[in-house]
Parts: sequence; structure tokens; C-alpha cells
Amino acid sequence: MWGLIATWRMSKDGVEKGIETLKRNGSAGEAIEIAIQEVENYPLFKSVGFGGLPNEEMEVELDAAYMDGDTLDVGSIMAIKDFANPISIAKKLSKEKVNCVLVSSGAEKYAQKAGFERKNMLTNRAQAFYNEKKHLIDRNDLKAYDGHDTVGMVCLDNDNKIVSATSTSGLFMKKKGRVGDSPLIGSGFYADSQIGGATATGLGEDLMKGCISYEIVRLMKDGYSPQEACEKAVLDLDYELRTRRKEAGDLSVVAMNCNGEWGAATNISEFSCVVQTEKENLEVYVIKNNNGIIEKIVADEAWTEEYMKNEIGYVDEEKWGK
Amino acid sequence: MWGLIATWRMSKDGVEKGIETLKRNGSAGEAIEIAIQEVENYPLFKSVGFGGLPNEEMEVELDAAYMDGDTLDVGSIMAIKDFANPISIAKKLSKEKVNCVLVSSGAEKYAQKAGFERKNMLTNRAQAFYNEKKHLIDRNDLKAYDGHDTVGMVCLDNDNKIVSATSTSGLFMKKKGRVGDSPLIGSGFYADSQIGGATATGLGEDLMKGCISYEIVRLMKDGYSPQEACEKAVLDLDYELRTRRKEAGDLSVVAMNCNGEWGAATNISEFSCVVQTEKENLEVYVIKNNNGIIEKIVADEAWTEEYMKNEIGYVDEEKWGK
Repeated sequence: MWGLIATWRMSKDGVEKGIETLKRNGSAGEAIEIAIQEVENYPLFKSVGFGGLPNEEMEVELDAAYMDGDTLDVGSIMAIKDFANPISIAKKLSKEKVNCVLVSSGAEKYAQKAGFERKNMLTNRAQAFYNEKKHLIDRNDLKAYDGHDTVGMVCLDNDNKIVSATSTSGLFMKKKGRVGDSPLIGSGFYADSQIGGATATGLGEDLMKGCISYEIVRLMKDGYSPQEACEKAVLDLDYELRTRRKEAGDLSVVAMNCNGEWGAATNISEFSCVVQTEKENLEVYVIKNNNGIIEKIVADEAWTEEYMKNEIGYVDEEKWGK
Repeated sequence: MWGLIATWRMSKDGVEKGIETLKRNGSAGEAIEIAIQEVENYPLFKSVGFGGLPNEEMEVELDAAYMDGDTLDVGSIMAIKDFANPISIAKKLSKEKVNCVLVSSGAEKYAQKAGFERKNMLTNRAQAFYNEKKHLIDRNDLKAYDGHDTVGMVCLDNDNKIVSATSTSGLFMKKKGRVGDSPLIGSGFYADSQIGGATATGLGEDLMKGCISYEIVRLMKDGYSPQEACEKAVLDLDYELRTRRKEAGDLSVVAMNCNGEWGAATNISEFSCVVQTEKENLEVYVIKNNNGIIEKIVADEAWTEEYMKNEIGYVDEEKWGK
């Protein structure tokens, strides 16, 4: 049994490439790396890799992580600049016994020595976007811009290996050096081949408060289905945050277990994910939260057109260029 | 009910100061900050704050974190250089709604603007130690030096607030930018005032594989006593690591619940912790693992003398100076 699930519609082309790898009997590690690279390389996604939006100093600082559910190997990089494919650096780091989580210039030094491709990750389009929104810096409230659409994936291969991985440029207009949940084990991602894997996207500062990816995996260990685990983890954390802090940031998650069953949940009105397994064709789902009731709906053409317009911004292309 | 528990005998003076604060009805946040500052400021501890051992480039890069169990506020800094008290920076960061986890130069920029004390944290003694051990760099095996004695504390105050916090210089001879479990929520620390708090010390790369601090807190939520939760979390993770990876790094933990009951466990032959509660006098405990059986023994004078000699190294003082 194989399968691949990913956060957000933007992952679709990547998932297709990853699935090709799985069908050729490639490993979950290869498949997830290819899939995430595809998302990183696409210049119009504002929150991942090349074209990702910059921090408040107009630097594109990227985070990525990779976890092997067989060995529990983890690799993670945080706030790295000027490398084309953070996911590949994180994957390579996961093979290290120690020094497998590296931040900032230390991560860059490692990547440089290991021969990873250098690239200026700031596009003209991202720069133009920055210049247009610059006044937000002084408001100390980034809620107006909720473009924190991390790519997170969970992959199962024919050898029953589960891998989970993430890649993100983080919160737009973040402070220099800020990291969210994506590179933090247990918060942005977790994988255990004996159980399953999970990954999260949303407001990192809130997702991490519940170690939400680890929590989903441990719920699956306790017998919850991936869907039940995702819903319980999101709704419980949302409740705790609202009770203790009066508000909860965006929390969205996906998970897959070692049988290729999957789940997704969110506390916002609409989140999307992409999934394909040996038993199910590639599909984009819109996940909705209606007063605590989670609905999964197959995305139709109208939805897709709207998504493209809002999230990827074809309309801006003429104005900003790529 | 109030209480404070801390990893390693080196925390004793800090715990005493923290307890004074609690007795004066100070908050858990104040008490834990004062207690950890004391450990950070003491120049002879090789793995925390001033006098902490440097990375392979002879830079002292420090990590610290703070979590408020009422609000789930988290502040964390990673690989910060040249600031006197990382714990205080992490605590201040925990009040931020976003951008509360900062790495490297971004963390330094924040600390600089917030007015925190600058200090060259590299002592002559640490430099001499580095020079003497430099040949280890090329061996790519740091096991020979197991000086990763993070200070981690869990504190309960009279208002039933639980706080947990950590501070460390990390693995000696680590790569530039390396971080372990200490600044990672769920791995190095976790706190929930409705349940309890936990913190870990040992090989960060292995501790994080089990999100061990979060796991201990959730076990306490499921009804385990702090001691049962610590033992189960350590022994289970040790088993998983040995089964999947053939070996397990050092794993040591302490925890306290919202009733002031505490626990400690380790997978190594000997770990120490310091604890005082409203009901129990200040005591240093030696925690032993005899083939999976955890023993807690009050430290005697002979043990303390040996600890001082090995860990703090009075014997080296004449040679290296402070």
C-alpha cells in the first residue's frame, strides 16, 4: 500500500510527481522530496521556497524538516537563506546522528559544504508584494495577512515506511529569525512507520502550543482513525487556546496511517489538501469547519479557479511579473 | 502548594534562590527565571550560560526556552551569542503573540533592542578546554564527551501556575547553528498548569525523537503519577531507539504535577536532580537506572564531592583559571 497526502491545493503538481515515484516503487523519502521540491521551485507560491514572501527585512528565510518513521531520523533547518531546496538539505541532515537540527548561518554553512544549489529566493513579485504591504510592519498585527500556507506532506511507501516533511517561508513580515511550527518536531510534523504520520499548517505559534502533529500520531496509536485523530487534535487545541487565550490562530492538519487511511481537519472556514493512495485517485479536498463539524468536499472547478486567483494570484502576474 | 524541580546538582544554588522567591509569594515565572539565571551566571558550569563550552568554531551559542502553563505562552531562542541571560530573553519573548521563537542573529537583534545585557560568554577556562579537546572535531563522534547537562526546571507557585524552562550551551563541539531538544517545545520542555510540567536533558537529537516532555505531561493527564510518567516515557523511548537504531543516547527527565508531586527518570547509570516543595525540604537526588529499574537516592557528601570534581572541575581551576 502506498499513499501521499499534502496540505493545500498548491501541492497538487508536487503530489503527482511524488506519486509517479511511488508507483515506480520509489521510497517514501524520494517521493516526498520530489513532491516538495516541486512546490518549492514554483515561483508563484507565496509561502514556500522560491517566490516565498520575505521577512520584515525583505529577506526570504526558509524552514524545512524531514522525518523518517522507521528510524525516527530527523533533519531540520531553520531561517536558512539563498538555497534552492530546503527540503533536500533537511533530508540529508536527517542522516546525521548528531547536529541534525541546524539554524541560520550554521545551516547555510552545512548546505554550502554539502554542495546544495545556491539561489536568490527573493523574486521580483515577492519584492513588489513586500513593498505594497510594508505599512503592516508597524501595526504589530499580522492577522490581516494570513498567508502562512506551509507545504506539509505525509507519505507511505510499499515498504510500509512513513515519512513526513515540511517546507515554508513562514509568516509574511515575520521578524528576522522567527520560526513557526514547521521545523519543530512534534509540532509541524511527526512520523512513526508503526503508526502513521501527521503535519500541520497555520499559525505556527499556536500549532506548537499543542505539539499537534505528535498528538495526532499518538491518538492514532491509541486507536483513533486518522480522521478522528485530526479532528480531535484540532478541536481540542482550538478549545484550549480559546479558553486560555480568548482566541486561537489558524490550525489545519493532515495525517495518514500505516494502512494508507488518511484524515484532515481545520478550525478555519476552509482549508484544502491533496491526496492519492493506491486505492484512491488523486483528489483535491476542501476541508470545512462548520461550528466544529468537519466536512470534506471534493474541490470543483469553480473552487479551483477562485483558489488560484486568491492564493496564487494570476491576476497579479501582469502587474508584478514572476 | 509550591515546588521547584531542576535537572542536575549544578542547579542547587539556583533552586535555593527560586524557592526564596516562591516563599515570598513570587510567581513561578519569577522564581524559575531567578533560579536559571543563577546557573547561567556561574562560570564553572560547562554546559549552561557563562562558561558554557563552545561549538566547533569556538563560539558559545546558547539556547533557552520558557513556557507558561496557564496560557501556553512559549518563548524560545536558539543559537544566540553574547548575551548574559538567555532565559530572560526567552521569558520576555513568551509574551509575544507571534515571533516568539527566534534564532541566531534574529534573536540577538531582538535582545539588543530589548536592552538585554551583552556579555562575552566565552571564558578563558572554556577556551582552554576547547583547545585541549580540539582533536575530537575530526572524529565525528562526540560520545567521548557527554557534557550536555542542560538546566531544565519545572516550577509550581501558590496560584497553581506551572512554568517550565531550559537553558543550555548544547553539545560541546557541536556544529555552528546546531540545536538540541532544549529550545524545542514538547521535546526539551512542556507545561500545562491544569496537569503539570516536564523538562529533559541528555542527547537532544534522541530526546526530540519522542517529544519526551510533551509525552510526560500527556501521561500525567492520563492519570500517571509524575514518577510513573517519567519512567514510562524514558523507558519506552529508550526501547524504541534501541530497537530501531540499535542505540539510545542519554535520556534524563524531571517532572512536577499541579499538586507538587514530582518524578525523575533516566536511561543512564546516574543522573541528578534538585527538588524542594512546600512539603519537602531541599534535597539533591541521585537517579539511577539499574537495568530498567529506576532508583532515587538522596545524595550524600561523598557523592557531592565526586560530582564537583567531575562535573565542575575544581581540580582544573588552578590550571585554567576561571
